[in-house]
Amino acid sequence: MPEKDITVIVNVGDNIKLFGLYICPDIDTIMYMFAGLLNRGRGWGITGDSFRLLKTLHRYGLETWFNIGDRDLATHIYRTAKMEKGSKLSEVTKNLSKILGVKAKILPVTDDWVETKVNTDKGLMHFQEFWVRRKARDRVLGLMFDGVDRSEPAPGVLKAIERSGNVLISPANPITSIEPILSVPGVRKALKKAKSKVLAFSPIIGKKPFSGPAGKLMGDLGLKVSSYVVAMLYKEFISKFVIDVEDVALKSKIEGLGVGCVPTRTRMNNLKEERKLAEYVLKHLP
Amino acid sequence: MPEKDITVIVNVGDNIKLFGLYICPDIDTIMYMFAGLLNRGRGWGITGDSFRLLKTLHRYGLETWFNIGDRDLATHIYRTAKMEKGSKLSEVTKNLSKILGVKAKILPVTDDWVETKVNTDKGLMHFQEFWVRRKARDRVLGLMFDGVDRSEPAPGVLKAIERSGNVLISPANPITSIEPILSVPGVRKALKKAKSKVLAFSPIIGKKPFSGPAGKLMGDLGLKVSSYVVAMLYKEFISKFVIDVEDVALKSKIEGLGVGCVPTRTRMNNLKEERKLAEYVLKHLP
Repeated sequence: MPEKDITVIVNVGDNIKLFGLYICPDIDTIMYMFAGLLNRGRGWGITGDSFRLLKTLHRYGLETWFNIGDRDLATHIYRTAKMEKGSKLSEVTKNLSKILGVKAKILPVTDDWVETKVNTDKGLMHFQEFWVRRKARDRVLGLMFDGVDRSEPAPGVLKAIERSGNVLISPANPITSIEPILSVPGVRKALKKAKSKVLAFSPIIGKKPFSGPAGKLMGDLGLKVSSYVVAMLYKEFISKFVIDVEDVALKSKIEGLGVGCVPTRTRMNNLKEERKLAEYVLKHLP
Repeated sequence: MPEKDITVIVNVGDNIKLFGLYICPDIDTIMYMFAGLLNRGRGWGITGDSFRLLKTLHRYGLETWFNIGDRDLATHIYRTAKMEKGSKLSEVTKNLSKILGVKAKILPVTDDWVETKVNTDKGLMHFQEFWVRRKARDRVLGLMFDGVDRSEPAPGVLKAIERSGNVLISPANPITSIEPILSVPGVRKALKKAKSKVLAFSPIIGKKPFSGPAGKLMGDLGLKVSSYVVAMLYKEFISKFVIDVEDVALKSKIEGLGVGCVPTRTRMNNLKEERKLAEYVLKHLP
């Protein structure tokens, strides 16, 4: 499938304002990936970037727990400058994508400010503070997507779900990456309507997520860390669920939820494995 | 004289907000100089700094006529972040000076926003736009220090003029570096009172200023580019005026203004020459 035919709807709950800059970690990661700039080892930022600014800020005694590379910073400065002049996040994302030669359409799920906050035994904090700064060490009591009730889907989001041949839900953290997308008014409903063409990937193999704080969050929130639980969370709006072969025993249980189950090798440690999974899944689209 | 006994009152009219950043070229140049960080060849910025951010912004199609190095940027981000939280420019300057090990007291002449605007045949523009972006190519019709009428001297400015053993006026551009300082209500009056201990350096040798757009500005504004004219501009509040030996012929004319005249070698091409001039002048203080 040509890149230009892909629309990616991206979480904005991780967005954070730091040093006056409007920073969108998820959008940038997706954008850098399509642009061939992503530091794949780290999973964020620009490959080969330097960190001179951050080192100097550290010397200045500012908190520098959030990583910003010198080139990466240009993205945040560009975005902040444009948004201060009245551009919407989706417009700026479109401009940046064009500049970076990205042909896929990257859409923030909403142009409104929605902030994922984690309520912990150490108080309420921004998701980035919980995850990056405090390394998910605090006990999670609850989550909120501040502002989501009043948010609207960005232009094109609902249409993309409605008109796309298929909708794929990535093997992302169901709690803090997928849920804030689903919580934007209209999105869950659009997915339910599109259910017959929606396929999701489980982000979990056995009792462990691929990466990130999904396991910690699910555990603290009283959810068993298992592909079956993720299938339960998604069952209303997916028709197929891809799980790892290691979890093949869950197949019939998941199908009991009314969801088709596709076991395959889902570990992706390099581009070759990513491509292999993509090709396999393209053959099993709903 | 120990560095800690020096107070530098600095022009803020060159300050500019770019990409949401609060940038103070004159303050930073002075601060970097005392910190031993100044790129002396260029006369601005940090020695050995890189420009990766700026190159990326250029790639992003943003206007990058104003130079910002990757390390230098940390200063602007620090300042902007602190000021957004309510700090005054003088407080931030004090913090930055402390961080950078600067013992001299660097005081912005005012904490208020004063903006030097140049009225040209191409329209009214910020001084930096006139000087850095358009390289002083437009004909100057007039100047204004926007906001200066409503500004107040920053804490300590008037006291420094009043209590210092001597006040030195640097060989800076009289039109856009010294005049905006004098225009802050109270400053000119304080200098007049302190006249007997005020010494100024001429920024001009023959018909040429040391550097910068002083010649162009003076010429366009109908002022002859000469040390004598600068002495005329300053005569109310200085008791001694340092000119170059090349202009020794002006001595009696300047003294006719009621100002003591000290001819010496004023060209400073290296640290040794700077030190020599400083030592000579320290012997001839009013």
